[in-house]
Amino acid sequence: MKRDALVFYSPVDDPEAWREALSAELPDLDFRVDPDVGDPATVDYALVWVPPSGFFQRFPNLKLVTNLGAGVDRLVRRDDLVPVPISRLSDPGMVAMMTSYVVFAVTRYARDIHIFERAQRRGEWHYVHPRPLSEIKVGVLGLGELGGPAAKTLADMGFDTYGWSRTQKTIPRVTCTAGAQAFEEILRTCEILVCLLPLTPDSRGMIGARELALMPKGAKLVNASRAAVIDEAALIAALRSGVVGEATLDVFDIEPLPAGHPFWTLDNVLITPHLASITVPKLAARDVAESIRRVRRGEPPLHAVDAQRGY
Amino acid sequence: MKRDALVFYSPVDDPEAWREALSAELPDLDFRVDPDVGDPATVDYALVWVPPSGFFQRFPNLKLVTNLGAGVDRLVRRDDLVPVPISRLSDPGMVAMMTSYVVFAVTRYARDIHIFERAQRRGEWHYVHPRPLSEIKVGVLGLGELGGPAAKTLADMGFDTYGWSRTQKTIPRVTCTAGAQAFEEILRTCEILVCLLPLTPDSRGMIGARELALMPKGAKLVNASRAAVIDEAALIAALRSGVVGEATLDVFDIEPLPAGHPFWTLDNVLITPHLASITVPKLAARDVAESIRRVRRGEPPLHAVDAQRGY
Repeated sequence: MKRDALVFYSPVDDPEAWREALSAELPDLDFRVDPDVGDPATVDYALVWVPPSGFFQRFPNLKLVTNLGAGVDRLVRRDDLVPVPISRLSDPGMVAMMTSYVVFAVTRYARDIHIFERAQRRGEWHYVHPRPLSEIKVGVLGLGELGGPAAKTLADMGFDTYGWSRTQKTIPRVTCTAGAQAFEEILRTCEILVCLLPLTPDSRGMIGARELALMPKGAKLVNASRAAVIDEAALIAALRSGVVGEATLDVFDIEPLPAGHPFWTLDNVLITPHLASITVPKLAARDVAESIRRVRRGEPPLHAVDAQRGY
Repeated sequence: MKRDALVFYSPVDDPEAWREALSAELPDLDFRVDPDVGDPATVDYALVWVPPSGFFQRFPNLKLVTNLGAGVDRLVRRDDLVPVPISRLSDPGMVAMMTSYVVFAVTRYARDIHIFERAQRRGEWHYVHPRPLSEIKVGVLGLGELGGPAAKTLADMGFDTYGWSRTQKTIPRVTCTAGAQAFEEILRTCEILVCLLPLTPDSRGMIGARELALMPKGAKLVNASRAAVIDEAALIAALRSGVVGEATLDVFDIEPLPAGHPFWTLDNVLITPHLASITVPKLAARDVAESIRRVRRGEPPLHAVDAQRGY
């Protein structure tokens, strides 16, 4: 009897870590790393990150495509997708990692650490009277599988937490809103704003000069989703003029961020190299295996992606 | 009928904020700010932070002393205390604030932000593959009213969390230990260690050169309790030699930290000006008022302090 076969492709993920993690879950799975794929007609599943154009057409019997990450924007806008179920990763380790990044960036501003860092460089003891967390309004844009838990943790910590998403969500202790008017309202309300929106045709460029100017003067912005949601040139101008006070950025129009890019020289920007949340094979393999089991039974996979909707 | 009277003394706290917050809770309380105390014999309660020597003897009818903070080390070691119940502050706002500080400092190290900060100063994109939080061992020393909630939040976020206290505590998902042998064990175990121990005769100098050397090479230390728990000279030597990799310090032997102090020049130290957790009158007044009500009824106050034990 033919063993089910999976093809793996990623320019950044370690195939051997994935082989080991998946074989612990599905010992009978035939794990093949592109380009060493054997007979393409025997490949059932694809586990991929940004594969080259035409990749999917090579495998006529694909039953499932799993995206090696949470953001599928680079997958769903392709013109070579095949009509099989698409799944993406959203394992608990990834959720915990994103929440830790968001909590770090938000508490750093809420506790005035960026001010103390600058004082320390001057060798100065500079006291700023702290404000209770309950008086600090923090907003999360995007309340999906990453944004929802991040917003919940911020609320549990005691922040006055707001959340916005395309469709209305409900999260305990988080003031959740949806729709265009509420989007402007959350921008006006929050002094710390976290962007966890998926990149879709609707969200591309959603935060431009006009939207940044709606935020309270000197507000703090955290972007840990996709660079293209925010107009980078507008953000640079806003950070220079003080319209936006501070930014923590994990994503950029060009990555790695090129030497000499204006962000490098802005004292009010904290740069991290696109790792707010990454996939850990050991933690994510369980979900990947479960999706394969479901597809074998004729059920939809976990974390199914609607290619039309874009997430 | 005589109104109950309270005397307020603090070199750092705002008496008018406290007057307003307490009168909302106890409208009939006669709030007096030292030295404008009227007839000292009519004073029933003291709400104080480090009052001058002999302060308490001036008030022969005191029924309650409330410390304007969580740490009572400077109160209980005085030789002029009077035999009345002592209470300290531990309001939810203060707990949330301390937790936010601890979570900030721990996630900064766990997410390698200190490395990215240095790379950014060099204008360099320096990727470090993140580790799952569940593989990062974080320890909290002291599991009292501040340490306990901080440890719980770290565990809820997904860290592999350890806690040590003088007497055994139980916190969900936190590996709690107590006693001298377990103290050495937690030092050996954790790559990030948070000190939230109260300062007592037992804890003074508890972490010296020997204890720092027990920690994993390059471990990270966070001190948000009292400077004297850690031997400052030993810590400086350990930070210089790399025995301790990084430290986030909110407390110092001399505050404000003097210009030219070695900590200012150590690149692997983050300095904050003693504000990890402060008292917010609006949030703390409810507990202060409740303690007064309890003492009026002949009951012990909230957050009662055992002066012998020291906390």
